[in-house]
Amino acid sequence: MALNFEHVTLGQRVRFGAGQAAENLAAEVDRLNANNVMVIAGERTLDLARQVAADIEVAVWHSDVVMHVPGETAEKARAVAAEYDVDLLVSVGGGSTTGLAKAVALTTGISIVAVPTTYAGSEATDVWGLTEAGRKTTGVDARVLPETVIYDSELMLSLPVEMSVASGLNGMAHCIDSLWAPKANPINAALAAEGIRALSNGLPKIVADPRDVDGRDEALYGAYLSAVSFASASSGLHHKICHVLGGTFDLPHAQTHATVLPYVLAFNAPYASEAETRAAAAFGADTALEGLQRLRGQVDAPQKLSDYGFTAEGVPHAVEIILEKVPANNPRKVTAENLTALLTAALNGDDPATIH
Amino acid sequence: MALNFEHVTLGQRVRFGAGQAAENLAAEVDRLNANNVMVIAGERTLDLARQVAADIEVAVWHSDVVMHVPGETAEKARAVAAEYDVDLLVSVGGGSTTGLAKAVALTTGISIVAVPTTYAGSEATDVWGLTEAGRKTTGVDARVLPETVIYDSELMLSLPVEMSVASGLNGMAHCIDSLWAPKANPINAALAAEGIRALSNGLPKIVADPRDVDGRDEALYGAYLSAVSFASASSGLHHKICHVLGGTFDLPHAQTHATVLPYVLAFNAPYASEAETRAAAAFGADTALEGLQRLRGQVDAPQKLSDYGFTAEGVPHAVEIILEKVPANNPRKVTAENLTALLTAALNGDDPATIH
Repeated sequence: MALNFEHVTLGQRVRFGAGQAAENLAAEVDRLNANNVMVIAGERTLDLARQVAADIEVAVWHSDVVMHVPGETAEKARAVAAEYDVDLLVSVGGGSTTGLAKAVALTTGISIVAVPTTYAGSEATDVWGLTEAGRKTTGVDARVLPETVIYDSELMLSLPVEMSVASGLNGMAHCIDSLWAPKANPINAALAAEGIRALSNGLPKIVADPRDVDGRDEALYGAYLSAVSFASASSGLHHKICHVLGGTFDLPHAQTHATVLPYVLAFNAPYASEAETRAAAAFGADTALEGLQRLRGQVDAPQKLSDYGFTAEGVPHAVEIILEKVPANNPRKVTAENLTALLTAALNGDDPATIH
Repeated sequence: MALNFEHVTLGQRVRFGAGQAAENLAAEVDRLNANNVMVIAGERTLDLARQVAADIEVAVWHSDVVMHVPGETAEKARAVAAEYDVDLLVSVGGGSTTGLAKAVALTTGISIVAVPTTYAGSEATDVWGLTEAGRKTTGVDARVLPETVIYDSELMLSLPVEMSVASGLNGMAHCIDSLWAPKANPINAALAAEGIRALSNGLPKIVADPRDVDGRDEALYGAYLSAVSFASASSGLHHKICHVLGGTFDLPHAQTHATVLPYVLAFNAPYASEAETRAAAAFGADTALEGLQRLRGQVDAPQKLSDYGFTAEGVPHAVEIILEKVPANNPRKVTAENLTALLTAALNGDDPATIH
């Protein structure tokens, strides 16, 4: 196969180990010669953050973390960083916490060590977001990519199983959609396949035993790879569909992703033989759909969009909006007819294998 | 499986496309706002370099490229870069050319766009090397990692098939050894597996038709991944053995790697189940060894070390030196006895499957 692609690999250090966050953070602070560390962690994560920072000197703690990073929240954090002459930002938390650290890094250039406590994945990207006057602005800047990510699956033990599964399936959607997204390329696909493998191994173990370290490790590793591949490959058909269902129809994010994914896979796979082969192999299944459905069964994934408020009346409007957003490189030509069939099947929870 | 690792991903842009080097280089010069470009290319590569640079303005051409980057060669190139106020280095060539650009970048911080014409792989690493007073010094520095690599398999058409195969099998050795090298981790392993897949698809196509673009593309892509995974995972048992055979016994580099690899694979694989599974899947074979041997048959790979001057008398001395260098994390305990068996089998070209 002739290869024609552009790929940007983001440079970053990852330290991965269950129960080792404190030790790994101390090693990073030392390696980076940081003298004035600002730890950013929301109120509810402060106890966890104190454990993580047990072996380092902290110049200032900052817990004023707000969802979607409002401009004034960012300004406050920047002022604190300036006041304490901060030379390293350590974020302990989910997407909003990492996002606040990024907002500070964006204007100051101060490096970030991110210690995620959810599968949000923001720590593996150079994308920042700010909300001002109710409007979200996002951008890409090399300065906001964390220098180091410290993954410790013990920090996820407080994440309920249901959240882990929903978030893990969201990661799975990132991986699968990466295989045919606008900037799909073999490097993204290789990382996405590794993510599929890790998530499909890990999530059932978490369901079987929420404290299973192997399962938590694999799921966290898979979520990291899903963020890497998705950030590079961008949004494919699946994400376009879910974005409309979430934005226009207000369906819940995680459940929508988990429900729609097998339908998009069944829809595209016959037209994307390399993606199909890679995903099937990663699942260790005869077909990618079989692998995904086996996993969905094991983790008791949501079945149909009608359970979340979507109705047959909504289908035509959804089709209309989605059709305008379909990526030009989607492996299968998307028409009002086949998209209607896809959404209808997802609405009713029909067997995805019946999609044509 | 519990995961415990540290991984450094090197940030770099790759533009990959057969016949597109000139266009891709112009796009990079534009993107990087470079005004004074210095093109580094050895005398024999100058024609090729002129084609590659056809669409850009070049401030200065520099063709004083010498193997292993002698200190005075580096100094001359640095002086030229200073004289012309160079703000971008474009290297067109193999390892020595990339190496010279790195030597300039090391002291000046000027960015590099590397356009490789061999499978050397140096373009994907942050390792530099200089030879002064006959001694080679190497080091690691973020400044020498090329900002962008432009891969164009048409530039490899002048590389003879035999060289392509030897170099490709050397890449294969990087990939396989990465699976159990000192800094082996799942990310390296995923990239190495992708490299195995690409090389094992591409190399037989090049042998069948040296002008086959798909084969050249896949082999080049595989060689890139082999460099990425090897640079990160470091030297495993295979490279330690080959280093001794090359350094102390003066055996030829490429042939030694190609001959020894199946024996090391047969030796370690039973003790490295995950590596075995990944490699077998990447080869699309029942076992990794079967896959490697199939490939070696297709490309008519060298069979035994006795063809290259190694003798039974050399084995005990080789064993002695190698034993001191065996990586502590090698999946199988290496003893004088089993290492003697490995080397003897490689010497005589015995079936690797008989190694115990």
